[in-house]
Amino acid sequence: MRIALLGGTGDIGQGLALRFAHDTDHEVLIGSRDPEKARDAVETYEDELESRGAESNVKGFANEMAADRADVVILSVPPYYAGDTVEAVEDDLDSASILVTPAVGMQGDEDGLHYHPPGTGSVTELVAERAPDEVPVVGAFHNLAADALSDLDNDLDLDTLLVADDDNAKETVRNLANEIEGLRALDVGPLANAAEVESVTPLVINIAKYNEELHDVGVKFH
Amino acid sequence: MRIALLGGTGDIGQGLALRFAHDTDHEVLIGSRDPEKARDAVETYEDELESRGAESNVKGFANEMAADRADVVILSVPPYYAGDTVEAVEDDLDSASILVTPAVGMQGDEDGLHYHPPGTGSVTELVAERAPDEVPVVGAFHNLAADALSDLDNDLDLDTLLVADDDNAKETVRNLANEIEGLRALDVGPLANAAEVESVTPLVINIAKYNEELHDVGVKFH
Repeated sequence: MRIALLGGTGDIGQGLALRFAHDTDHEVLIGSRDPEKARDAVETYEDELESRGAESNVKGFANEMAADRADVVILSVPPYYAGDTVEAVEDDLDSASILVTPAVGMQGDEDGLHYHPPGTGSVTELVAERAPDEVPVVGAFHNLAADALSDLDNDLDLDTLLVADDDNAKETVRNLANEIEGLRALDVGPLANAAEVESVTPLVINIAKYNEELHDVGVKFH
Repeated sequence: MRIALLGGTGDIGQGLALRFAHDTDHEVLIGSRDPEKARDAVETYEDELESRGAESNVKGFANEMAADRADVVILSVPPYYAGDTVEAVEDDLDSASILVTPAVGMQGDEDGLHYHPPGTGSVTELVAERAPDEVPVVGAFHNLAADALSDLDNDLDLDTLLVADDDNAKETVRNLANEIEGLRALDVGPLANAAEVESVTPLVINIAKYNEELHDVGVKFH
């Protein structure tokens, strides 16, 4: 499969790119608004992968071209760009594409981070609203610390939570997520259940803030 | 210490009562609006504890008397009774009491459960607003499945998340929670961070709904 990471030069994009490139045989396409920036990021990722003797199958493109070439398109952009990024690539998506959104709206103050969803109830549902009707949307990878992903020496042993209204798309992303070593994908039902999934992101950041012994906190359910 | 469980005849009350009685040396006071009902519950709990050779230190009272006698008062009542229960016992609390709230507001539909906080932002903050000013309030034990607690054969290996504005009260509850075997208390900062903690409760219930292999789901952060 071909996996595009739009905004793949950012921290969560880097983490997912390295894990997919290292742990799976899929092709990883880094997208950026500036293709030059995407290619620079690819060089950094390749250095990291080659230093571990891993074969690198990562290429850099403009977001539109990455989306056009990919089977699974992951919107690894900040939440306030998520809607606009969907619109920028909508002509490059079709019913065979799967759009995946990991973004979460948060607001910080001196106490910590607070969940701050858009009017649609969650960023995941906002992406679904802005995506073309025929393109299935899956919420996934919301609660993973970018630094924990990017450090390939780090054994993950984490869960990621999936929401989607399209069961086939959800199953594809579930299999993809499970291919990352140490990651287990759990089903949390339809898109309407996204808010509680997204809320875990400010929570794990607050847990890291208030518990010295914990860093880059992730979650495991049992 | 003396720990009162107001509404201690309900399912989360039962779970906490059994764990505190089994794993710690503290005295457990079961409170109910009807003291007869509290004493009936105590008999059931005693049978369970004695069948395991555990010494039982559990007694039943009306909520007011349980609150009056206790150092730590846990509001193990449904969320819509939390505020009224605080007011019913306010004369029995003082600055030496600690009020603990595990309740979460939720609404269900065919998709699953959704977080449904009161206007104060969380039930935890609602309890703090309704409690006498001098009584410190700690949010804790929100995300524990009652059945997982009540089954003493079940090794927990779970986290519980604490929020409070009063550091001393939080530390007391933290120590208390850590005395339950297999439970680890994590600090999530002030009461203002309660909503993201409470949101985990509908989430773990949704995870149990959509993943056949998981029951009475709890959470562990690392």
